Amino acid sequence: MLAGRMKDIYIADLAGFDEGRAFDSFFLVLTKQQRTTKSNKPYLNLVLGDKTGQIEARVWEPGDPRIAREFDRGDIVKVRGSFSRYEDRAQVKVDQLRKAASGEADKLDMLPATARDVDALWAQLMGSIESLANANLKQLLTALLADTELAKAYREAPAARQLHHAWLGGLLEHVVSLLGLADRVAAHYPLLDRDLLVTGVILHDIGKVRELEWDTGFDYTVEGVLLGHIQIGVDLVEKTIAGLPGFPERLRTLVLHMILSHHGKLEFGSPKLPMIPEALALNFIDDLDAKMMAVQQAFEKASREGKAADELTDKVWALDQRQLLSTKEWLKAGNRE
Amino acid sequence: MLAGRMKDIYIADLAGFDEGRAFDSFFLVLTKQQRTTKSNKPYLNLVLGDKTGQIEARVWEPGDPRIAREFDRGDIVKVRGSFSRYEDRAQVKVDQLRKAASGEADKLDMLPATARDVDALWAQLMGSIESLANANLKQLLTALLADTELAKAYREAPAARQLHHAWLGGLLEHVVSLLGLADRVAAHYPLLDRDLLVTGVILHDIGKVRELEWDTGFDYTVEGVLLGHIQIGVDLVEKTIAGLPGFPERLRTLVLHMILSHHGKLEFGSPKLPMIPEALALNFIDDLDAKMMAVQQAFEKASREGKAADELTDKVWALDQRQLLSTKEWLKAGNRE
Amino acid sequence: MLAGRMKDIYIADLAGFDEGRAFDSFFLVLTKQQRTTKSNKPYLNLVLGDKTGQIEARVWEPGDPRIAREFDRGDIVKVRGSFSRYEDRAQVKVDQLRKAASGEADKLDMLPATARDVDALWAQLMGSIESLANANLKQLLTALLADTELAKAYREAPAARQLHHAWLGGLLEHVVSLLGLADRVAAHYPLLDRDLLVTGVILHDIGKVRELEWDTGFDYTVEGVLLGHIQIGVDLVEKTIAGLPGFPERLRTLVLHMILSHHGKLEFGSPKLPMIPEALALNFIDDLDAKMMAVQQAFEKASREGKAADELTDKVWALDQRQLLSTKEWLKAGNRE
Amino acid sequence: MLAGRMKDIYIADLAGFDEGRAFDSFFLVLTKQQRTTKSNKPYLNLVLGDKTGQIEARVWEPGDPRIAREFDRGDIVKVRGSFSRYEDRAQVKVDQLRKAASGEADKLDMLPATARDVDALWAQLMGSIESLANANLKQLLTALLADTELAKAYREAPAARQLHHAWLGGLLEHVVSLLGLADRVAAHYPLLDRDLLVTGVILHDIGKVRELEWDTGFDYTVEGVLLGHIQIGVDLVEKTIAGLPGFPERLRTLVLHMILSHHGKLEFGSPKLPMIPEALALNFIDDLDAKMMAVQQAFEKASREGKAADELTDKVWALDQRQLLSTKEWLKAGNRE
Amino acid sequence: MLAGRMKDIYIADLAGFDEGRAFDSFFLVLTKQQRTTKSNKPYLNLVLGDKTGQIEARVWEPGDPRIAREFDRGDIVKVRGSFSRYEDRAQVKVDQLRKAASGEADKLDMLPATARDVDALWAQLMGSIESLANANLKQLLTALLADTELAKAYREAPAARQLHHAWLGGLLEHVVSLLGLADRVAAHYPLLDRDLLVTGVILHDIGKVRELEWDTGFDYTVEGVLLGHIQIGVDLVEKTIAGLPGFPERLRTLVLHMILSHHGKLEFGSPKLPMIPEALALNFIDDLDAKMMAVQQAFEKASREGKAADELTDKVWALDQRQLLSTKEWLKAGNRE
Amino acid sequence: MLAGRMKDIYIADLAGFDEGRAFDSFFLVLTKQQRTTKSNKPYLNLVLGDKTGQIEARVWEPGDPRIAREFDRGDIVKVRGSFSRYEDRAQVKVDQLRKAASGEADKLDMLPATARDVDALWAQLMGSIESLANANLKQLLTALLADTELAKAYREAPAARQLHHAWLGGLLEHVVSLLGLADRVAAHYPLLDRDLLVTGVILHDIGKVRELEWDTGFDYTVEGVLLGHIQIGVDLVEKTIAGLPGFPERLRTLVLHMILSHHGKLEFGSPKLPMIPEALALNFIDDLDAKMMAVQQAFEKASREGKAADELTDKVWALDQRQLLSTKEWLKAGNRE
Repeated sequence: MLAGRMKDIYIADLAGFDEGRAFDSFFLVLTKQQRTTKSNKPYLNLVLGDKTGQIEARVWEPGDPRIAREFDRGDIVKVRGSFSRYEDRAQVKVDQLRKAASGEADKLDMLPATARDVDALWAQLMGSIESLANANLKQLLTALLADTELAKAYREAPAARQLHHAWLGGLLEHVVSLLGLADRVAAHYPLLDRDLLVTGVILHDIGKVRELEWDTGFDYTVEGVLLGHIQIGVDLVEKTIAGLPGFPERLRTLVLHMILSHHGKLEFGSPKLPMIPEALALNFIDDLDAKMMAVQQAFEKASREGKAADELTDKVWALDQRQLLSTKEWLKAGNRE
Repeated sequence: MLAGRMKDIYIADLAGFDEGRAFDSFFLVLTKQQRTTKSNKPYLNLVLGDKTGQIEARVWEPGDPRIAREFDRGDIVKVRGSFSRYEDRAQVKVDQLRKAASGEADKLDMLPATARDVDALWAQLMGSIESLANANLKQLLTALLADTELAKAYREAPAARQLHHAWLGGLLEHVVSLLGLADRVAAHYPLLDRDLLVTGVILHDIGKVRELEWDTGFDYTVEGVLLGHIQIGVDLVEKTIAGLPGFPERLRTLVLHMILSHHGKLEFGSPKLPMIPEALALNFIDDLDAKMMAVQQAFEKASREGKAADELTDKVWALDQRQLLSTKEWLKAGNRE
Repeated sequence: MLAGRMKDIYIADLAGFDEGRAFDSFFLVLTKQQRTTKSNKPYLNLVLGDKTGQIEARVWEPGDPRIAREFDRGDIVKVRGSFSRYEDRAQVKVDQLRKAASGEADKLDMLPATARDVDALWAQLMGSIESLANANLKQLLTALLADTELAKAYREAPAARQLHHAWLGGLLEHVVSLLGLADRVAAHYPLLDRDLLVTGVILHDIGKVRELEWDTGFDYTVEGVLLGHIQIGVDLVEKTIAGLPGFPERLRTLVLHMILSHHGKLEFGSPKLPMIPEALALNFIDDLDAKMMAVQQAFEKASREGKAADELTDKVWALDQRQLLSTKEWLKAGNRE
Repeated sequence: MLAGRMKDIYIADLAGFDEGRAFDSFFLVLTKQQRTTKSNKPYLNLVLGDKTGQIEARVWEPGDPRIAREFDRGDIVKVRGSFSRYEDRAQVKVDQLRKAASGEADKLDMLPATARDVDALWAQLMGSIESLANANLKQLLTALLADTELAKAYREAPAARQLHHAWLGGLLEHVVSLLGLADRVAAHYPLLDRDLLVTGVILHDIGKVRELEWDTGFDYTVEGVLLGHIQIGVDLVEKTIAGLPGFPERLRTLVLHMILSHHGKLEFGSPKLPMIPEALALNFIDDLDAKMMAVQQAFEKASREGKAADELTDKVWALDQRQLLSTKEWLKAGNRE
Repeated sequence: MLAGRMKDIYIADLAGFDEGRAFDSFFLVLTKQQRTTKSNKPYLNLVLGDKTGQIEARVWEPGDPRIAREFDRGDIVKVRGSFSRYEDRAQVKVDQLRKAASGEADKLDMLPATARDVDALWAQLMGSIESLANANLKQLLTALLADTELAKAYREAPAARQLHHAWLGGLLEHVVSLLGLADRVAAHYPLLDRDLLVTGVILHDIGKVRELEWDTGFDYTVEGVLLGHIQIGVDLVEKTIAGLPGFPERLRTLVLHMILSHHGKLEFGSPKLPMIPEALALNFIDDLDAKMMAVQQAFEKASREGKAADELTDKVWALDQRQLLSTKEWLKAGNRE
Repeated sequence: MLAGRMKDIYIADLAGFDEGRAFDSFFLVLTKQQRTTKSNKPYLNLVLGDKTGQIEARVWEPGDPRIAREFDRGDIVKVRGSFSRYEDRAQVKVDQLRKAASGEADKLDMLPATARDVDALWAQLMGSIESLANANLKQLLTALLADTELAKAYREAPAARQLHHAWLGGLLEHVVSLLGLADRVAAHYPLLDRDLLVTGVILHDIGKVRELEWDTGFDYTVEGVLLGHIQIGVDLVEKTIAGLPGFPERLRTLVLHMILSHHGKLEFGSPKLPMIPEALALNFIDDLDAKMMAVQQAFEKASREGKAADELTDKVWALDQRQLLSTKEWLKAGNRE
């Protein structure tokens, strides 16, 4: 049987392998289907993932004793197999497979995750809370994140299923970037109540901890689909405030309004338009940060795919299907001409 | 000074008065403004209302001892004055004015109110709750309406500020009409869970008790403008459920989804589209009932304004500015030709 | 040669067959194409259908004397063949094929058809006409459906090519459901002229008998594409009324308006918005019934495809690509947890 | 009493009159209302029109024996009165008024009318019909316009209530302009069937003869509002074709499609998009001709209102509220600088 | 005749005047019309403006020798008159009027103007140009603003005719605010080329110097209406670059793209969407700054109009007709309760 | 090695070839990619094009000395190979390949090109310029096209990458068709300044000479994507006018407005709506001509694909996905029935 070893081969590495080369490593099972060949022989079709990507895998002999009987979508498994290509598509032929023992492999290795240091990001978030002058808002945020399960989820959650920051820790990474931007913008416009803006930044997407689930890839929960992260976030805040006697009624209304209106338009799912300066500013910086990240990702993807520095990217879904051009690369390439 | 008497003259009656005829009655002060004449003499410009309409009034001698010093928007006042017309516009010239003593006049006489018997409507609502087979839903509705202040507001609230059912008791009248329609539709489609649909009907607009205020005419509260009745209603239900241990989590999600999605489209302020059959049905019957009421009102208005039975109405705001035709009147008029 | 036998094997049954199992049955030819293999050998590629679905079929030896020379799209054929799978796609290998003799197979077996008893549905429709108090409307409907060819088409027509009620008898099934709903809604709103509403229900889609054709699958006729079922229906009614001396001019206008406006919006192909209460109500119940049927079909499809009771369905085309959840199944599954 | 005389004073002439100058002339009564003065004295408020415009008029002594008792909206009346201004608004003070005797005044003098010779326009229309090579289309048009009442209405009808060609004879003037344009465009694109295009031009707006009424100003009929000129036009053609045995079924479909699709978009009230080249061309030239006329009218209005030659016009309603500039006038003014 | 004196009475002061009080001051003539009274006497109707507002004025005796014969829209005039009110509308009765001699009055006093020090703003702009590392961009901006007429116009131009920053110096004030914001945002996103962003900020609205004219109130030029400030700005830049040999072709394309795309959407008049990160950022900060200024103005207007600190503002045109709430005022008022 | 021979085999011819038949001919390399087989053997995947279409090609032995080492996208190559089919897709197996010597093959043979005589089209364009009465406009056009590089590009450019007139010479063909149409329309509407309209026709799309590039298939340039042909065209005209002293300023504004507004709507990329009659007319005829060409192409495609004369075409992308019907073919087919 396969011995337990720490993961040292990632899916991104396989692209460089020769046809047929054997290896073993841990993966997350993303899908598992029973199928039959043309000659009616049953086999298993799997999709395996880790933090660098995903790949199809085939178990041609599911009855082999070296293949575990009991494993399912969401399990981490140890696989021994070899690499092949079918019609330009990479594939793993699985020879041995067993479930990972508890502690043998790290869940964070199994899904795409932020490249940033999560503890450092978290410390920045805590620092922002600490910096608030408004005692009520500081108390609200402190009380909310005192729930350790919620805090853990906040550290882990992706910011989206597919678009920007779609990786573990993405929510936190996005929020911390926004905190920096919010401080800059609040300093520029004296009209803005900086504490309320910071509070809005920290709370606007908090409902994503229950709207999304990231045990087996990134997906929406049924509750998430039926209620949405705006409503879930509002409820988390309402219930926390209910436990804070003396929290000013007007401040409660403003905080909730920040969450409700942060998508900026009814047709984007906000039931209210921003009607206070801080809500208006939050909507702008949230949108700008998401788009700057989408731009960054589009350039990285183009570079990974070997596009010339002075080509336009493919059409970017998160930016209304427009193509983008990297100013810096294009100018640099122009200078070389 | 003016003696207290029950209101027996209504604004709608004044249209029939001769120029200059004197009268006295109770009214609600809807607006009060200081103005000056061309010759720089100060006077008061008022708008007075009662349940049959509203009318402008002028106090040409605000210093006269028979005119109360202290009264404001929202007060009920006893007025002695006379009726006049200025450029085809009816007006009251006020000779005496004092604040009504408590109990002297009935608030319900001062704003437009349902023509239906509110106690009977309330009994129908209670009967619907009683009829529910699902014990959890029955418990939820019972607990919520056990709050007497809330129940009182539910009985009084208009259904809207301006469009359909914009009168005291309008919310209740609309809900009771919907309960009848919901029973008919649920009986037609076995797919529908009748109890969930009925619950949705009773709760969908409950947030209007705080979104609107009707002390001095109908208006939105600041909280109502910033949060909206959908969010307010969801919060009322969330907090009631929080007090009901054992309320099934999934049922809670569905009830909340009914409220969140009942406007049917994002651009109408629902952050979620209806995704369960009952939410879809609720959106349809709510919309149909509001539109049928708008049709009815348009016909009544046309008839009040002396339109011929076979003319089209004016453009109806609540129906995308289209004109309407009364089938029955038009055919009847055709038969007479 | 193949002997004639009644159809006892349906396409839906084939899914359960072992690879290679032989069978014979009648099918409708939905498409027929000449192709060549890589090695340049000609073969026939067919799509065969019956009321349970459709399947690809290959005739590898089109020159074989057991394969009829003369057959075409739209013919019913008797096929002897065997079942196979190619890349998970079911396929029939055809060994023998001949055209069905007249009377050998029932056309109604060859296309998806209503599960309801068409005679019973028709009787309900006739009962509704019988129930009308308005003699002119009763006369109009009776005269129109006295045309036996039209009546036959009304019984057979699908309600749509693809969306809701896309099966033989679908139009009638949809209309009969609407008649029940119309009676309930008319009883709820005294404002409505029940006879006009019922007439609108029966006539609103009657133009589909010429807009669609269902000889070889469901498709639009050229006339249907150029004129549309609204215009075709209006013309059928106009010409019937032209043969009814004394039919009131105003009633004619209202009936035509019901048909013209039933899609409710210009951008949905209605050249006029509903402007009478009955047209408004017809638009609502027509839309609701179509959507409730789409919901029902989505749940049935999910169940056929083995989705868990508490999963969301796939995105539903007829409901703006939203996903749906079956209230009853989800709650049931929740109770089992 | 007023003697009968031919109309020699027009509303447009009054602008030049001195305050108080007396005159008499024939006018069409466009509205008639009973009112009372502030001092409660009854008077009549009229709007009088003729082909050059309209003006308000007051009858201060409706009981005077020189004022006819019996007259109404739609009547032509002989008025003796004097001219005055009230807050910059012109007004007629009426001293005597009687109904015109039959034949005393010409209806065509009473409403805005084309400046073109209607007989000449009609001859051009007839010439176009005569020029058709397709015998069926020629027969259809000839049969339709053989109905003398219809032909009379076709000669009189405005093309619209308010926008382009809103004057008597406007429909005919618009159609004749289109016939010229159609011939030019058909000559340019050999793909086009000129006869079908010409037929479409003549028939596309024919339903306006019943959609509009022009007895007392320009207005929509109830039938027009409920059915629309597209449907009315289609019905006129359908019934004419029904009386032409042997008219080719396909040609009928194409002619009807031309009418149905001529607005070019669903949201403009066409239930079908143009799907044949002639329908596409008709939509373009119809739209272009209406817009060129709107441009022309905007320039004429600006010139009437004394705008400088090189100013932009006011916002033009028929052109999405854009402002226009007269190329020729602007360049000319530039040359003078 | 009126002696020359510096302006010491402003239109905003008149509101506090008693009826009939005499005064004299300088004003800009915004409109001048010949009119006649009811009794046919000619008079002049003027609109006079200065930097604090505008007011109607009447010259009842235009033939009086103390009234100048020759003056026109756009002239600065010295007026002696008295203040009155007509139907609550303030008005000036003019007794004497003469054209101001050159130098007697300051044009900047006559139109609303920025409250900021224009020289200081200009110095900030120059400082930003000085700070650029990219020599080509620095050269471009320097060359462009070396045109003294253009530089003068840049200092004077309003940023809009009506919406945000609609006052003299508004363009410069808006640009300087953006420069501060751009530096903050560029520091936050290393992806951004700060020099290109700063250049875009300075150039994006430069075409407004010819799109608008501000001699007699704020209006569009004909060229501005036909070409728009985007095209005018692009042309200014193109022609400046044409005079800079060796300016890199790619950099030219990027600078032009910044201007072309800064409205962010085709329907807002940008012929191109932002496709480089700097253009995306420019669109966001430009929009945010305009909206923050609109918010500020709405709060100032509400405060001027005496709205309570905790009321919503009127609907704000520049923010899709939404109402706004001042966070700080509302919370403060809440604390006082 | 392959000897040089004129191209006599076109891609369109290959469809009729037997499997495996050898041939040699010149082609343009449209794409070139390195790939590996499943067994890890490298090969080249090419797309080859000529004026009749494009086809995939495989070089299985890229190391073979008969295969050139150095060739790239955009090169014309001489290929010897054989024809095959893989899953119904045509393919060329390449045995020998070398770059074409200069002059050996005609570039115009390599891309789809107009069927019209380019010299004759150009003469028509020159004739239109010659016919202008306005000396300034004639001078402008003459000066612009005196640039031989620009004139060459104008003759070669396609009118679009994909939609209408997407072939070499397509721009010129489209413009010449428009010139004919413009003359007809200008003759019909005396309001129009024919010279300005003609100038607009010639200049409206001139920016496409730099927006598109057609060396290796049709594609957008980066400048084209960032600036667009409207801006590029305006710049060409601005700079030409800058070299024509005395060109009237107003005429310049009008010419530029014609180019800027010719797409007719902001959302189609025109930053200004047409505001002069000539711009309005240009927008209409440009749109009509493009659509008539799309109709023509759709009919030709349907006929090439063997559609029956009386079928509807496939959905046409350039016409909002609608299907089209050929009037003439459908009627002809109807007559045969």
